[in-house]
Amino acid sequence: MARLLELHPDRLFPADPTTRTIARALYAEIAALPIVSPHGHTDPKWFATNAAWTDATTLLLAPDHYLYRMLYSQGVDLDALAIPRRDGVPATDRRSAWRLFANHYYLFRGTPSRLWLDHVFVDVFGMDVALEPGTADRYFDAITEKLATEAFRPRALFDRFRIDFLATTEGAEADLSAHHAIRSSGWNGRVVTTYRPDGVIDVEHEAFGPAMTRFAELTGEDVWSWNGYLAAHRKRRADFRAAGATATDHGHPTAATANLSPAECEALFGRIVGGGWTPADAELFRAQMLTEMAGMSIEDGMVMQIHPGSSRNHNAGLFASHGRDKGADIPTRTDYVHALKPLLDRFGTSTALSVILFTLDESVYARELAPLAGHYPCLKLGPAWWFHDSPEGMRRFRETTTETAGFYNTVGFNDDTRAFLSIPARHDVARRVDCAFLARLVAEHRLADWEAAELAQELTSGLVRRAYRIDG
Amino acid sequence: MARLLELHPDRLFPADPTTRTIARALYAEIAALPIVSPHGHTDPKWFATNAAWTDATTLLLAPDHYLYRMLYSQGVDLDALAIPRRDGVPATDRRSAWRLFANHYYLFRGTPSRLWLDHVFVDVFGMDVALEPGTADRYFDAITEKLATEAFRPRALFDRFRIDFLATTEGAEADLSAHHAIRSSGWNGRVVTTYRPDGVIDVEHEAFGPAMTRFAELTGEDVWSWNGYLAAHRKRRADFRAAGATATDHGHPTAATANLSPAECEALFGRIVGGGWTPADAELFRAQMLTEMAGMSIEDGMVMQIHPGSSRNHNAGLFASHGRDKGADIPTRTDYVHALKPLLDRFGTSTALSVILFTLDESVYARELAPLAGHYPCLKLGPAWWFHDSPEGMRRFRETTTETAGFYNTVGFNDDTRAFLSIPARHDVARRVDCAFLARLVAEHRLADWEAAELAQELTSGLVRRAYRIDG
Amino acid sequence: MARLLELHPDRLFPADPTTRTIARALYAEIAALPIVSPHGHTDPKWFATNAAWTDATTLLLAPDHYLYRMLYSQGVDLDALAIPRRDGVPATDRRSAWRLFANHYYLFRGTPSRLWLDHVFVDVFGMDVALEPGTADRYFDAITEKLATEAFRPRALFDRFRIDFLATTEGAEADLSAHHAIRSSGWNGRVVTTYRPDGVIDVEHEAFGPAMTRFAELTGEDVWSWNGYLAAHRKRRADFRAAGATATDHGHPTAATANLSPAECEALFGRIVGGGWTPADAELFRAQMLTEMAGMSIEDGMVMQIHPGSSRNHNAGLFASHGRDKGADIPTRTDYVHALKPLLDRFGTSTALSVILFTLDESVYARELAPLAGHYPCLKLGPAWWFHDSPEGMRRFRETTTETAGFYNTVGFNDDTRAFLSIPARHDVARRVDCAFLARLVAEHRLADWEAAELAQELTSGLVRRAYRIDG
Repeated sequence: MARLLELHPDRLFPADPTTRTIARALYAEIAALPIVSPHGHTDPKWFATNAAWTDATTLLLAPDHYLYRMLYSQGVDLDALAIPRRDGVPATDRRSAWRLFANHYYLFRGTPSRLWLDHVFVDVFGMDVALEPGTADRYFDAITEKLATEAFRPRALFDRFRIDFLATTEGAEADLSAHHAIRSSGWNGRVVTTYRPDGVIDVEHEAFGPAMTRFAELTGEDVWSWNGYLAAHRKRRADFRAAGATATDHGHPTAATANLSPAECEALFGRIVGGGWTPADAELFRAQMLTEMAGMSIEDGMVMQIHPGSSRNHNAGLFASHGRDKGADIPTRTDYVHALKPLLDRFGTSTALSVILFTLDESVYARELAPLAGHYPCLKLGPAWWFHDSPEGMRRFRETTTETAGFYNTVGFNDDTRAFLSIPARHDVARRVDCAFLARLVAEHRLADWEAAELAQELTSGLVRRAYRIDG
Repeated sequence: MARLLELHPDRLFPADPTTRTIARALYAEIAALPIVSPHGHTDPKWFATNAAWTDATTLLLAPDHYLYRMLYSQGVDLDALAIPRRDGVPATDRRSAWRLFANHYYLFRGTPSRLWLDHVFVDVFGMDVALEPGTADRYFDAITEKLATEAFRPRALFDRFRIDFLATTEGAEADLSAHHAIRSSGWNGRVVTTYRPDGVIDVEHEAFGPAMTRFAELTGEDVWSWNGYLAAHRKRRADFRAAGATATDHGHPTAATANLSPAECEALFGRIVGGGWTPADAELFRAQMLTEMAGMSIEDGMVMQIHPGSSRNHNAGLFASHGRDKGADIPTRTDYVHALKPLLDRFGTSTALSVILFTLDESVYARELAPLAGHYPCLKLGPAWWFHDSPEGMRRFRETTTETAGFYNTVGFNDDTRAFLSIPARHDVARRVDCAFLARLVAEHRLADWEAAELAQELTSGLVRRAYRIDG
Repeated sequence: MARLLELHPDRLFPADPTTRTIARALYAEIAALPIVSPHGHTDPKWFATNAAWTDATTLLLAPDHYLYRMLYSQGVDLDALAIPRRDGVPATDRRSAWRLFANHYYLFRGTPSRLWLDHVFVDVFGMDVALEPGTADRYFDAITEKLATEAFRPRALFDRFRIDFLATTEGAEADLSAHHAIRSSGWNGRVVTTYRPDGVIDVEHEAFGPAMTRFAELTGEDVWSWNGYLAAHRKRRADFRAAGATATDHGHPTAATANLSPAECEALFGRIVGGGWTPADAELFRAQMLTEMAGMSIEDGMVMQIHPGSSRNHNAGLFASHGRDKGADIPTRTDYVHALKPLLDRFGTSTALSVILFTLDESVYARELAPLAGHYPCLKLGPAWWFHDSPEGMRRFRETTTETAGFYNTVGFNDDTRAFLSIPARHDVARRVDCAFLARLVAEHRLADWEAAELAQELTSGLVRRAYRIDG
């Protein structure tokens, strides 16, 4: 007989009865607030076409490297999970792939993926038994069947999830047609883009050349000259703002910034597009471009997000066979204090600039990020990111940043996901963990109950709207 | 109507009833012990002149970069807070500045500043409503009025706070006149100095030249020769000991030490005073001087404190307008294992040497500092410092150092503050957090209750007196 | 009157009653499971000869640098504790040494050594009063007397401790005679060896030359040629497998690996054995040898353990007088992401390879090790090691690795000790801490109770047997 599955109303709250009671009360007031999702990787085509998803495997498993990396780590073959290769999607039966996933679902015990998936299973699909080998088919059938209905189309779920604002992320070489289609469709869901120009900044990216060509086509600028290149960025930033963007995003290997003279910039850019660059040039150019982007942010008001420190495509064999974003990105030690100084020396006292910093290196929370954000007016701390977007990770984020940066130099939650159906689950985890943290402060008489209630609202709604300059 | 303010007797104790009961009992035994403050930055002139402070803003806000950095991080103008600039104190109305502070007091929710200030407001000034926009004037008036009375003069508060020992910190170029005045005044408060020679060691400090000139004047030595320079240090150390000092303090950018030959020292010193130094020379000279200071500590018995790892004056614009110590110092990653080896190779087995190590990089607690202090007889661990002098920071300090270094290689609490009125609050936080930690060990049957009681006494009183070689 | 000593049945469980009840129930099911000890440093001669130990000091104190380092850190002379010097064991009276130890036993408050020793005192020796100055003789006499009895000989204790599998660690230059004697003795205790070839890989080790000579004698290979050297490793690995080894172990200063061409290897090896090597050569050779060992592991199926990051013999004076392993090894910051890439580029997708990674740098748990183990099929995480083999250390290990790597990419517990009598105590601490962690997840509704029960079994028994390829 299958084991029952339910979401306990007190999940993620501390066991201590005093603290739990406080957490429950705080959560009750904010549980139903609309979702503001200012940074993520959902596909805008979903909302443009509103086409039905086909099946559980294609929707939930195949695009989600958070999931299949864990099975891969235990020796499961990615082909058997229907994970796309460079040369196409393997012709794996979707139901077999799902069964294989169900067989290994126990691997996720203690992980946030497990929390998110169970939430999706219960709340989105109405399942009431646990996913295990014996229920794999029942799950596959129920989910696939529901996905074929109107109520499970992207826009219907967007409304059902009470999403108030959803930002996707597109490259400088993107045509934004999906976003234009959304805007002209008459649908009132607020889906906007985010300007992520890494593809035309990182000369070490394998698709830099084609991205630059497309960048030139879309802007009509001579992107192979320094001034033309900057002008093209300005044009595309304007395009993105027109498609609702309030923010840019920068995913560099490090947080390095630079502050070169115009002549140095021009010479460096010459090497970058001329092909004579070294790895040090590539890094310096990325560094300089963060500073250039900060300057343009001051001009156009877009908030700047920096997501540094991921060593991408660490598994050489897997990168060769499967390409990017296959669960093989590994965090590295990241410096911010020295890295950001050139940008801050140039723009650090501008009241117009707003930079949101993320990290994959938790050792910098208390040592570098909280002190920086607790001082510079232009710096804010993004929430616990990626591997740290988890109950323990969020708790550590609050415990190590709050005492120095306070709550008001943080920006609320990011789901940062391509797994659209998990968005409510992820926001729910964040709200619960924040309430648990606040409850401890109240229980230890470090905060009054009314202050905690105010803060719960701010952490859920106020801070994110102000930090990302979201109207309404 | 204003919200009430009170200090809950169980603040900072864990919510779990078993643990809280134990913590309460431990705390009850040590709550009233006299304060021993072996390291801090109060102004000895206060105790020399015993002049009344003028108003809330001048006393509590303007000198305390822990406070105004937070407002600055949210865009508040420092001039409006009456924070001194390089070219003088702005002519800001003190009451307006206080109102602005009150308007932003909510920013401190969840921070230790909030705990300290509320303690000061209630315990020192008898306030019973919270500081908020509506009570700003009431606070300003009440505090300013009280400060004009005899009971709120420095010496009266020193006695009321039950301070048994208070060390200030002076540079090698200080004349110690305030300390001499205290000693000759007949007042029996024990205020001593600490020898902090950074100003004549760090050639990268903007005031190195004038400090050296003053160093020469005060000692009559040829401080521009290596031997004269060392002789001047010895003379000044003797002066400081005569003014009660039991310790030296060294605030270097890193913990680097060196062990050069006399000839190498002489050549390096020649470059330092000759002006031909490089940044590497400056660092090497600081490194060598830590080793020299250790040698002199063995001679004269002064305990040596090392406070490394702060990247000072990170905000270039603010440094230009406002100078040092304006809340713009940011911690950096700090190595101890390799950095201290030259000093330890030379003096590490001396039984006369005692070095107290501090850090702004918590990642070294378990990895480097606890193993070093748990081995070398000459090394002890200073308490959680600066950004980490907070409930969570202190908890992490105990959790990550105790299992390897034990309690007895630590040195009790340092308030390390220029905010004199907050000293009782800060010691109270430390005592509560230590009792909470001990209570958990007892509740988890890792320590007997009588042992915890002994340790609470040691952490409050015994360890600090022995570590800093304080008589009586 | 002496204070009573007893082991509380709830020790190390959280105080919260809900969580404690769950922890107790989980622990009850696994408390009595046999001990599997796949990595440690006990002396195989004990089990080969089954000779009685002589006295408390010689057995418990003199070989255990976890203990005497703490006394040394407080100024206690090692000679007075009967700690062996390079030139022999000091002629210190064993009882006097024990008394000195008892006088300082309070130093261990809050440390795991204290937990382990009290467990040994109560459970192994039946003591019922605490060790303190007044009970030192009672302890010394009781322990020494018991050690003379049959029931306290090594094999009897091995059986009494219910040890199912015990791996020792021997160098490539070891003759394994003790292991051969165990196997031919007819005793059915399962004591096996582990291949730790550091002595013939680390040219910076002071005994590299003699070790190489012995390596040549034992294998009959020309170990001064690159191919002969590799052949010698293969022969010795086979010898070790014949003596039961299922694993190798590598204790390098860093986790660096390399992937040189055969010609580069040969040239490098020429410098290593030719004497013209630099420190960079020594590091590169260690790095290349990790990759070579991985290749041989794929051939012969031995699991590979890497224990990097200890700065050995940090105290130059103590190393001169007392030699290695005297409590003066200090952890250093350790990189894995870049360091392991060469090995992983070459062998990372092999399904035959299994590498167990350890660290002394906790900052890498969440940042590097959990992401690596949560992706690469060949990587697993060893348990909290050395300074971190402690209740708080184990808790941090679970809290920072589980969310990314899950439980199933970890390998259960290692006692990693030369203190044979403490093995049950150490495993008991690990079981309790794991149950406490699981209990929290259950209490916070992050895991079902039946899942936690399954995991408790896995963490105690299943994972270690599979990870170390232990039959039966």
